[in-house]
This record gives sequence, C-alpha cells and structure tokens, in this order.
Amino acid sequence: MSYTLDQLNTAPEPEALQMLAGIYEHSPWIAAAALRQRPFASLAQLKHAMAEVVTRADTDAQLALIRAHPELAGKAAIAQSLTAESAQEQNQAGLTACTPQEFARLHELNAAYNARFGFPFILAVRGPRGTGLQRTQIIAALARRLHQHPDAERAEALRNIHRIAELRLNDKFGFTPALGNMVWDWHEQLARHSEPEFAAQGQLSVTYLSDAHRTCAAELHALMQASGFDAVQLDAVGNVVGRYHGATPGARALLTGSHYDTVRNAGKYDGRLGIFVPIACVRELARAGRRLPFALEVVAFAEEEGQRFAATFLGSSALVGDFDRAWLDQRDAAGITLRDAMQRAGLRIEDIPSLRRDPAQYLGFVEVHIEQGPVLCELNLPLGVVSAINGSVRYLGEFIGEASHAGTTPMNRRRDAACTAAELALYLEQRAAQDGDSVATMGQLGVPQGSVNVVPGRCSFSLDLRAPNDAQRDRLAADVLAQVERIATRRGLQYALQETLRAAAAPSAPAWQRRWEAAVQALGLPVQRLPSGAGHDAMKLHQILPQAMLFVRGENGGISHNPLESTTSDDMELAVRALQQLLANLAAEIST
Amino acid sequence: MSYTLDQLNTAPEPEALQMLAGIYEHSPWIAAAALRQRPFASLAQLKHAMAEVVTRADTDAQLALIRAHPELAGKAAIAQSLTAESAQEQNQAGLTACTPQEFARLHELNAAYNARFGFPFILAVRGPRGTGLQRTQIIAALARRLHQHPDAERAEALRNIHRIAELRLNDKFGFTPALGNMVWDWHEQLARHSEPEFAAQGQLSVTYLSDAHRTCAAELHALMQASGFDAVQLDAVGNVVGRYHGATPGARALLTGSHYDTVRNAGKYDGRLGIFVPIACVRELARAGRRLPFALEVVAFAEEEGQRFAATFLGSSALVGDFDRAWLDQRDAAGITLRDAMQRAGLRIEDIPSLRRDPAQYLGFVEVHIEQGPVLCELNLPLGVVSAINGSVRYLGEFIGEASHAGTTPMNRRRDAACTAAELALYLEQRAAQDGDSVATMGQLGVPQGSVNVVPGRCSFSLDLRAPNDAQRDRLAADVLAQVERIATRRGLQYALQETLRAAAAPSAPAWQRRWEAAVQALGLPVQRLPSGAGHDAMKLHQILPQAMLFVRGENGGISHNPLESTTSDDMELAVRALQQLLANLAAEIST
Repeated sequence: MSYTLDQLNTAPEPEALQMLAGIYEHSPWIAAAALRQRPFASLAQLKHAMAEVVTRADTDAQLALIRAHPELAGKAAIAQSLTAESAQEQNQAGLTACTPQEFARLHELNAAYNARFGFPFILAVRGPRGTGLQRTQIIAALARRLHQHPDAERAEALRNIHRIAELRLNDKFGFTPALGNMVWDWHEQLARHSEPEFAAQGQLSVTYLSDAHRTCAAELHALMQASGFDAVQLDAVGNVVGRYHGATPGARALLTGSHYDTVRNAGKYDGRLGIFVPIACVRELARAGRRLPFALEVVAFAEEEGQRFAATFLGSSALVGDFDRAWLDQRDAAGITLRDAMQRAGLRIEDIPSLRRDPAQYLGFVEVHIEQGPVLCELNLPLGVVSAINGSVRYLGEFIGEASHAGTTPMNRRRDAACTAAELALYLEQRAAQDGDSVATMGQLGVPQGSVNVVPGRCSFSLDLRAPNDAQRDRLAADVLAQVERIATRRGLQYALQETLRAAAAPSAPAWQRRWEAAVQALGLPVQRLPSGAGHDAMKLHQILPQAMLFVRGENGGISHNPLESTTSDDMELAVRALQQLLANLAAEIST
Repeated sequence: MSYTLDQLNTAPEPEALQMLAGIYEHSPWIAAAALRQRPFASLAQLKHAMAEVVTRADTDAQLALIRAHPELAGKAAIAQSLTAESAQEQNQAGLTACTPQEFARLHELNAAYNARFGFPFILAVRGPRGTGLQRTQIIAALARRLHQHPDAERAEALRNIHRIAELRLNDKFGFTPALGNMVWDWHEQLARHSEPEFAAQGQLSVTYLSDAHRTCAAELHALMQASGFDAVQLDAVGNVVGRYHGATPGARALLTGSHYDTVRNAGKYDGRLGIFVPIACVRELARAGRRLPFALEVVAFAEEEGQRFAATFLGSSALVGDFDRAWLDQRDAAGITLRDAMQRAGLRIEDIPSLRRDPAQYLGFVEVHIEQGPVLCELNLPLGVVSAINGSVRYLGEFIGEASHAGTTPMNRRRDAACTAAELALYLEQRAAQDGDSVATMGQLGVPQGSVNVVPGRCSFSLDLRAPNDAQRDRLAADVLAQVERIATRRGLQYALQETLRAAAAPSAPAWQRRWEAAVQALGLPVQRLPSGAGHDAMKLHQILPQAMLFVRGENGGISHNPLESTTSDDMELAVRALQQLLANLAAEIST
C-alpha cells in the first residue's frame, strides 16, 4: 500500500516524517528539513528539496550521511544487519550471490576505497532504469571511482545517495516512470545497432549511412509508425520524418527532433533522447485519440556529429536550405565520396533542395537533448532550459621564443615559449570566468620535441572560445588576442595565430524559452537556465525558425561522447512530461 | 705607425680623442666618455669601458649609433661615400665584388631587415678571427637575424658594433691576438674530423671512439708533442694526456683540460677550448725554455657529452676512480657494447683502475670552457669566473584532472590539467628568479592527444631545477614540490611525479676561484662571477681535487650545442693570457 503526495502534504509532521523514514539511510534530519517546504506539487519537487537539504549541509554532515550507508556486500551484509531497504537493494543486484572470487575482489576494492576516501563506496545498485545493475557493472564502477579526486568522489557518493532516495521514494509512493522506462528501452533497442568493428568491442558507433545507421533509420521509421504518426518517411538526406496531424488540416506544425547518428564509442542518449521523447508524446496523444490545434513534425536527423565526412549537420542543413553541393565530393577515411555513399544508400540527392522547410508553415523548433555537461548533475536538477547555443571561435597558435640551455640561461634572459603559453592559459581561465557564462579552453598544448634540459623555444596551442552571444564571444576573443600580443611583447617572443572556426551563437527565442520554463515549473521544478556549450541541430534550424531547447541531466557528472554517458528513466519521464506540458500550454495559447 | 696604450693614457684629451676617432662610427661621444676612465691597463679594459658607455646610454642613443652605420653593400658603398674603415672592411669581405644575384639578394634582405627593425643590418664582417667572413656567410647571417625579436636584434647589432670597434682598435694599436689566432686555427684544424654522415652535411659530430674521434685523439697527441710536452700518452679510456715537467722532479702537478668529444651537429669550441688553451701555455713555456715549480698535466678527456652510450663523463670518471664496469655492457644505437667499442679501439680496459689520480700528487684542477650561456656576451665581458657548477635535480610528472567537453563544462567546474601545469610553469619561473642564480625549467610540456574542444584531462611535464649549491637546490625543489601539491589540491587534481636525476653541486674551491679572479683582474678586466648551469669534467674532478673554472664568452648570445657556437680569437687570446697569469701567480705563491 503506497502513500499519495496529498497524504504527505496534509499529514501532521511526525506522521509525514514517518512516511519519509528510511529514504535517506539513518538520516531523518533530511526529511525533517525538507518537510518545512510542504506542500509539494510533485515527487520531483520533493526529491529536489531533500537533495538541496544535503547540498546546504556542511561537509561533516554530508560525510556522516555517506558513512551511514553499509558497504556493498560488506560486513553488514554478511552479518545480516542491513536496513530492510539496503538488504533488498543489495539482494536485487545479486550481491548476496557473489562468487568467492567476486567477494574477494569486492572486499579488496572496498578496502582500498575506504582507505582512500574514508567512507564506504555508495552506488545506487538499482541503476538508472531502477531495475538493477549486474555485479560486474558494480565492480567496474567501484574500480573506476577508486581513482577519482576525493572531492569529486564525495559529490558522486552524494548523487548516488540521492538516486537511492529517489528509487525508495518511488516505491513508497507507488510511482513507476512508465514513459521514462519506455523511452529508456527504446534507447537500448536502438543501441543494439553498431558498426561491426565497434560492436565487436561492445562499443556504439553509428556514423552516417553505415549499415548500422541505415538499420537505425528503418527501426525509427517502424517505431514512428507503430506509435501512431500519420505519415512517416525517410527523406533525401536520410532523416526519418514523422508527422502527426493537427486538429485541422493546414494547421501549422511544431517542428522537433534531434539526431540519431553517434560519435565513435558513443553514449546511447546524445541526440536520440530528442527523438524518442517526442515520439513518446505522439504515442500518448494517439493512444488517447487526441489532436492538437497544430501538427507535430518529429525529425530524426541523419547526421549531426561530423564523424564520417568533414561536413556536419547534414540532416538539419537540408531542412534550412543550406546543404552545400560541394560537400558531395568530400571523402571518408576509406575514400568514398559523400555522393557515392548517398547514392549507394538509395538517397535521391536531386531531391535535397525540396527538403527546405517554409517557415510560414511552422510555429517553431524545439529540441530535447542530454546536457553533455555537469551543471544539472551538480545542481541535482533533472531538467534545464537552454538560454542560447553558444557562439564559438577557434584558433591554432604558436609562440616562438628562443631554445636555450636549461642549465646556463639565467631566468631573466629567457624567451621561454612554454611559460608564455602558460601565462596565456591562465589568462583564458580568468577572463572567461569573468563573464560567468563564457568558456575558454586551451585543449592542445605542447612543446614540440621538448627536452628536459632545453628552455622551450616553441610552444603550440589551441584556443576554443565560446559565449552565449556573438558580441560577448567577440569581446572575449578580442581580449584574448590582445593578451597574446601583450604577453608576447613583454616576454620578447613572436607568435603565429590562425583562426580555424567561427560559429554564430543561437540565442533561444524568448517566447519558446519561456514555454520550456513554464513546462518545467508546472512539474514543480525550479527553472535553471543554462547556455549550451555544444552545437545542436537547433543551431541550424535557428536560421529559419524560432527555437529553444530543453536539457536533461546527464549522470556521472554529465560525461558525454563516452560510453559512461547516461541519464535515468526518472529524468526521461520528466522530459516527456515537460514536452507534454509544453504541447498542452501551446494548444491552450493557440486556442484562445 | 700605431699607437701605444701609454700614449693614449698620457695624451691631452683632444689628442686622445683623435686617437680613438672612427672606432665607433660617427659617434665620438663614446670615446669621450670612456676616456674619463684613463689610465687603461690593457686594450681589453679600454674595449670594455667603451662598450659600457654604450650599454649605459639610452635606447635613442643606441639606435642613433646603429643608424650611423652604412648598409652592407648598400647605397653608400655604391656611391663610395663610406668611411675609410667601413670601405676597407666591406672590401675585405668581398662585398664590393658581389655577383648581380648576390647584390639582389642582399638588397632584398637589407630592405626587409630595415623595414622590420628600423635600422641597418650591422655585422662585423671581419668575423671572429678578424680575417673576414665569406659573402655567403654574411648573407646567411642576415637571413637568420631577420627573424629575431627586435630587442634581441638590437642587442646583437650593438655587439657587432663592439666587435667592429675591437678590430679597429687592434689595428690602431698594432695589436694582433697571435696566441688567440693560433688557438683558433687549432680548433679549425681539429674540426675537420667529423663522422661521415655529419661531415656530408657540413656538420661536426665526434662521439666516443668513432673513427673521427680516434683521429682527433691522434691529432691532439701530435700537437702536444709538437708543443713541447715532455710525455704524451693515450690512456686506457682514450684520454690524451700530456705532461710538462716542473722545475724539480717529483713536484706536484696542476691538472687541467677538458673534453674533445662533441654532441651531434656541434659547435667547435665546447670542450676543446679547455684543451688548446693550456697547450698554448705549455708551448710558450717550452719555447722560452721555462719550467714552473710544479708540473702541468693537460688532459684531453675522451668523453663528456654522453652521446653514444648512456654513461657519461667516461674520461674524467676514470681519473677519479669512478669508472663503473657495469657501463661496459651498455649498447650504442647500433647495438655495439661499450666493451666492444673500447676493445676494437685497442684500449686496455683492465688498465682503467690504474688511471685513478692520487690527490696528494696534484695541486688542483682548473678548466677553461666556453660559457654556453648568454651572461658574458650580454655584459660585453670576454671572461668570467665560475663560482660553482650547479647541482641539479630532474623530475618527470603528470597532472591528472578530468577530460570534459570544452563547450559544456563551465569554467568553475573544470579540472583542467593543462592550466594546472601552466600554473606550475609560472611558479617555477618566479621561484627560481627569487634566488637570482637558480634556474628552473619546464622543458617538456604536453597534453597527450589534446583536442581543441576537450578540456585537458592530462598534462605531462618535466622539471629541471639547478642551483649553485645543494642546499639551495634542495630548498628550490622542496618549494616546487610543495607547490605541485598545493596547486593540485586547490584545483582538485591528482598528480604523479618521479625524480629522474640528482647531481650534487660542485662549488669552486675558494682559493682556486680567487686565483682565476686575480688572473682576470691582472688583464684589466672586471671580475664577473657566475655559476655554471651545465655539467663539466671539473664536476667529476671535484670528487678528489679542489677545482675552479674560467668561462670564455660565447658569441651569438652564448648559443651552444649548435653550429652557431662561437667565440673570437681576441677572447681566446685573453683566455690564454689568463691561464698564463694564473700559472705565473701560482709559481710565485709556491716559490715564496
């Protein structure tokens, strides 16, 4: 028998506290503090409120919370002194059925972990879908986290505790993220298709028009059809486009979607989440037999990652009339031209110009995407609203000083190219931080043929500068370039600097950003605005339509372009709910 | 008819000024200021005094001095409006006989040089031996210097002007550096022998026991014999040892010398100068039939540079009883063991232990060496006295942060390994400068597989720390290691750090350093003490004997391990005179 949120909101405090007993292991102070914020509009709001109590607590309290947890397959498990919740969780993960070797390995890792961090290893063993990790996954996570920095590891332990609390709360309140689980399973299903050389290593790689890519297109096509779309087609660049008609013929459409291609050795959610979330919404509409006062057009873009050919955003470029025929002569690593690849896949290149969308027929473009960054993860927030896709500019550079004997050249007579680059790197850090939402990175840095006993005569570096709007990016770039000149002059070095990329910022359309904000608020969650540092299909659609994006929290600190990329089915559920909310609000707007 | 220094010292000022007219092109203010320091004990003192006047002048006056010079093979040459001195110098260099192509190239380079620096290209065309550069050498120097930093190039122009002044002064005072020229020619002679693959490219390379190396040994053997040594032998490690007996049998010996092996693509003076200077002294003694109250033992060490085998200081190690038999199994790049190489060369490995010198039989060890650094060059001083051979310690390290998306990771959530290394690089600079005579270098620095759009998760680096004594080196190292820890902790990174080398400092024996100082002062030159950043044979001899070194100025900013390494025959002359002075003073000390 499970509780309702209404019961929690109206119960006297001792009873409410009892309802939340055991959510945070041996730590009733968390529920007590959170309950002062009653009433809660949603479980998501309650979860966030409790996490915030922990975030605001001091380090000692946080460490006490972590230490209140039992070791996985540890002494308490053997002594059968676990809390009921822990016992069930460890049991589900099969930890009580470890082989002797696994027990030994776990014991060894647990001991090393404890010695390093001073607290037990905490992992939400029911995992991101709430259905249980394998013992081998648990051991791998423990081995990986053993090498993290202590601060990072404490934060990760707390995040796992919040995830454990979320799953326990779901149980108590009889909540299952059914839509989220469905979307999760669709990702798993699609991720079965990977290029053979990667599949052989258990890795995901789906680059443009590979066999795996074409299989994915066919599967997305079938899924859209099965989900109740009125019309589904594979277009001339390989996009899978599903249309769910509006209440009236000729109604304008809301365009949404993201890409289904991946980087090499990718995560499963980058791009695809923005396809499956709207499919889930259409599926729910179709099952309910509901029509909106506008059409929904969901595009699974064929290419965004720029992995196989130099050109990128092939799918969304076609929709904005920006597909450059010169790209057709580009060759992949095997020497196959883009033209040949498209022809072999049966795509009709001559039809590409007709893919251009007429803005008059569309309301706008929205895109759901996994954040690919740490912000939401660190704030314990499942959703965030994108304020802008950052503009960027990149440079490759080199400082040219004078190589000299490291032993015989006094400090004040050096022209050290590495120290000069070092000074620039620290300036980048400080200057970008000044803006708050700019980023500046020296991702490449190296002394060519450096010797331990030679003062570096040359040092090469890259600069990647991004800001939420072009003016801010340009001010950042101007300051950085001026600093390059200033540092070089003061130190008596020369330099070379070459701009290699410049991409305009795509600020969210205010009205559409507000619609996402309203949707997030309707779920009981605080609105977190954040810029997107990475590029997205929305950046291309920005050329012809107002656009705004919703970000979904990534687990593991938001790591992306990496098999560790993840989110949870709870967060996926919230993403579906947010898009449903946006559609409902938009329907209301249009009807009135 | 030439002047004497005595005439200059006693002449009324207008006449003295007239005697120095034309030394510095169209700039009598330099001589005027310098003459206030009369009397001069030596031409070297006068030269330094005039150079100092220029050094202390402001930048405008320095630029005016540079601009007072004609372009090489320029308009003035064509219009025949050069000063008599310039006309003669340009004529000697064959510049008045350029081919039309050479004129065109010179004209083009001169124009580019003028455009870049705003002053004409100045080169002492009579070169380091005072006998004239080739036209091709002049064009090469112009092409090279065109790319220097303007500050460095202004300093180099002034140094060339000082060299021009030196040669003009020599002419006026009828002075020829005969011993210096002889020593210069010996270097040229020995540098004809180079390993074939380097010789083919006009490069010098003489590594241990190569054919070129053995030819050098034979030539040195012959030179010592021809110079009047009483006994010359090739010892069991390949050292060439010459002995010039003292006045009485059984007198103790002063040991001196340096190495005759070279690095690959080397300069001609590194090591060899310290062999030829004492040979010149012995030659003068023998020609005069003079004996000192002590013997002189001059060693041409076979190996110091560590180029062919991993072990280094093979020659001097044998003399201090430190030759490690385990080295015999080391292999060169071709797989030949040190043992095989020595046996093929006919060296008797079993005799090596007998090479150990008995300290009781020796007064001490002195070594003359080219500076291999910029200090004397920048101070316009031909000689300097080494205060210590620096102790050193080296580390290889890596910072381990977290690789993340350069676009999506906010500045305050990064664990950027490159910025962390950058902070350390700047600390090194500042911390070593604090000591004044310590040096600290991050010669290797790199982000492995860095990408322009990825925040560096790893950054590897090297540290090379040196100081004139071990305590100072250890304090420097302790501070640097503490800073590594501090920076890593503050930024939340891990690091690995491994010590790869630790060499003790060899401070000069005070009595022997004072003897060099007295010798330099006797030549009318100010005493400049400086540590040696590089290692030298004296560092090994330090284990058994008191030692001190004399440094000779390197041209071209003191560049070394490079074909541009050079000094002048004037400076070589002063080095011979300084050693003669030391020997004379020591003889006086011992006799009294």
